[in-house]
Amino acid sequence: MILAVDIGGTNYSLALGTPDGRILERTTGSTDRSGGAQWMIERVLMVGRRLIASSPEAVTACGISFGGPVDFASRRIVNSTHVAGWDNLAITETIQRALGTPAVVDNDANAGALGELTFGAGRGCRHLIYYNIGTGIGAGIIIDGEIYRGANGNAGELGHVPVLPDGPLCDCGNRGCLEALSSGTAIGRRGEEAVREQPRRAGGIRQAANGPVTAKAVFDAARTGDGLALELVDETCRYLGMGVAAAMNALAPEAIVIGGSVAKAGRVLLERLRKQTDRFLMPVHRPHLKIIPARLKGNSGLLGAVALAAASGGENQAAG
Amino acid sequence: MILAVDIGGTNYSLALGTPDGRILERTTGSTDRSGGAQWMIERVLMVGRRLIASSPEAVTACGISFGGPVDFASRRIVNSTHVAGWDNLAITETIQRALGTPAVVDNDANAGALGELTFGAGRGCRHLIYYNIGTGIGAGIIIDGEIYRGANGNAGELGHVPVLPDGPLCDCGNRGCLEALSSGTAIGRRGEEAVREQPRRAGGIRQAANGPVTAKAVFDAARTGDGLALELVDETCRYLGMGVAAAMNALAPEAIVIGGSVAKAGRVLLERLRKQTDRFLMPVHRPHLKIIPARLKGNSGLLGAVALAAASGGENQAAG
Repeated sequence: MILAVDIGGTNYSLALGTPDGRILERTTGSTDRSGGAQWMIERVLMVGRRLIASSPEAVTACGISFGGPVDFASRRIVNSTHVAGWDNLAITETIQRALGTPAVVDNDANAGALGELTFGAGRGCRHLIYYNIGTGIGAGIIIDGEIYRGANGNAGELGHVPVLPDGPLCDCGNRGCLEALSSGTAIGRRGEEAVREQPRRAGGIRQAANGPVTAKAVFDAARTGDGLALELVDETCRYLGMGVAAAMNALAPEAIVIGGSVAKAGRVLLERLRKQTDRFLMPVHRPHLKIIPARLKGNSGLLGAVALAAASGGENQAAG
Repeated sequence: MILAVDIGGTNYSLALGTPDGRILERTTGSTDRSGGAQWMIERVLMVGRRLIASSPEAVTACGISFGGPVDFASRRIVNSTHVAGWDNLAITETIQRALGTPAVVDNDANAGALGELTFGAGRGCRHLIYYNIGTGIGAGIIIDGEIYRGANGNAGELGHVPVLPDGPLCDCGNRGCLEALSSGTAIGRRGEEAVREQPRRAGGIRQAANGPVTAKAVFDAARTGDGLALELVDETCRYLGMGVAAAMNALAPEAIVIGGSVAKAGRVLLERLRKQTDRFLMPVHRPHLKIIPARLKGNSGLLGAVALAAASGGENQAAG
C-alpha cells in the first residue's frame, strides 16, 4: 500500500493508493497559508498516521506531489512561492522519521505527468508532454516512459518558454513567458483589463464573474458565445499554441495532455488550442498532433505520487 | 574503416574515417545544383569507389549526412529544398548495391550533433543541443548520449520554434519561426532592408559587403563596431536567445553547441547570444548556461556520419 500526498497552495490531499492506481481512501482540505510549512507538515503527519492505521495492508512507501520547485536528487523542497517556511525542507526525512516509511517527492507538474502516463490519458505512450495550467503553468516531459529531468534536474519548464519579447512580467522575473500570458492568473488579469477598457462589451464576463474577473468567468462567458470573452480565449490559445508547437517541434511526443484548473474549460479551450498549435507547427508534425484533456482531473498529482512511490520503492534516484 | 559522406546544397565532402574520429583522406567539391540528385549520386559513387580502393583497411560501413529532411527509420531522403530529384530516395540502398557497404543516413543537424558529441565540443556530455545556423537553422537534440527522434522521427526542429507571432514567412510555411528571423539568410535579408531604409548609416555594411548584403558582411561590419550592423546582430541574438532559452528551460542540457556558417562570426555573436539567452532563461537554469562554439568546424557533419556509421554498424535502427 502507498501513502500519497498532494500539497498545493490552495488545497491538499492524502490518500491510500495501490500500485495499480486504485484509491482506497482519500482526505482533502484547504491549505491554511498563514500556518506556513509547519501547519501543513503537522496536517500531513496527522492524516498520514490515521490513514496508515486504517490501511488493510502495510504501507511501504510514501509519494509526495508538491506545488513548487523540488530538488528531486536530494529529496528536498526548494521553496514555495505561496506559503512560507518551505525553503530547502527535507520533507522526505520528516516523513521517514515520523511515519516510518521511505518517501519520495517531486513537483506537481512532474507528478501529474507521471500520473496521467501511468493511469490516465497518456497510458501506453512512450513520449508525452503534460501541461498543468492553473495559477501558473507547469509541465512535465516524459521521454522513454520516464520523467525527463535534464542535466541539472530542472528540465520541463515549458511554462517559461518566451512567447512575446517584451510581454508582461512573469513570476520568474522575466518578461513574456507563456505563464505570464496564458495561466489562469494571466487570463483573469487580462479579463479584468478588458472589462475595464471595453465596458460596453463587458456584460457577459461581468455576469459570469459576479465579482472579480477570474479565468473561470472568462471561459464561462466564452461558452455562451460572448464576443469579448472569445477574443480573450483566442489570445490565450494563440500564446499557448506557440508554446505547445515549440514543444512539439522539439520533442515530437505521442500526445500532449492538458490538465489543471484551466483545462476544466473543456472544448472551448481545447478546440482553439488545437487550431492555434496547428498554425505554428511544422507541416511534418501536423498529422501527429494530439492534444487531449487529462483524465484523472483533480487526482493527477495524487496518482502521480502513487506511481512515483511505486516506481522508486520510496527512494529518489540520482537526477543525472 | 568508415566511408563518410556529407551532402549539402552548396558543398559536398567524402572521407575515409576511423571509428575514433581520425580522417585519413578527404575530398570536397561544390554541389552542382542543376545536376540534381542524379549528378550528386554519381559523384558520391565515383569518389567513394576511389576512396575505398585507396583505403589501407577494409571499408565496413558508410555514414551519410544529408542537408535536408531524412526518414531515419526507413533510411530514405525525404526531399531537398535546394536540389531536385531527392524525393523519397533510398540512397542507402544505392550505396549498398554499388559499393557493397551497409549505409546509414541522417540529416546534417543530427549528424552535426553526434559529431560534436563524439569528437568535438560536446565530448563527455550526456544531454546536448546542437544548432546549425547557416542557410536555415537546424538542430539536433542529444538525450542520454543518443540522438533524440521523438515518436514520429522528426524531433529536434528547434529552428521552427515560433518567436514572433506575426513575424516573417518561413520556408516551412509558418510565420515568425526562429529560422525566419535569425538564419544566415534572414540576417542577410534584414541587412539588405536596413541598408535600403537607413542609407546614411549603411556605409560600414556596404563596405564589408562589396556587393549584395550577406550575413557575413553584417558580422564583419559589426566586428569593426559599426552601429547599424551591431543593431542587426543584437536583434538576431534576441530571437536566438528566445529560442535557446526555450530549449534550455525545457531540456536542461549540459551544453548548447553553436555550429554552421553563421557561427564563424565568433565572439561578436556568441557573447550577445549568451547575454540574450540569459535574459529569457529561468533563474534556476542561469548558473548552468553553457553556450559554446562547435569545434569540428566544417567537419561536424562528416565526423557525425563517421560516428553514426560506427554506432549503428551501418544499419539504421527503428525510430520508435
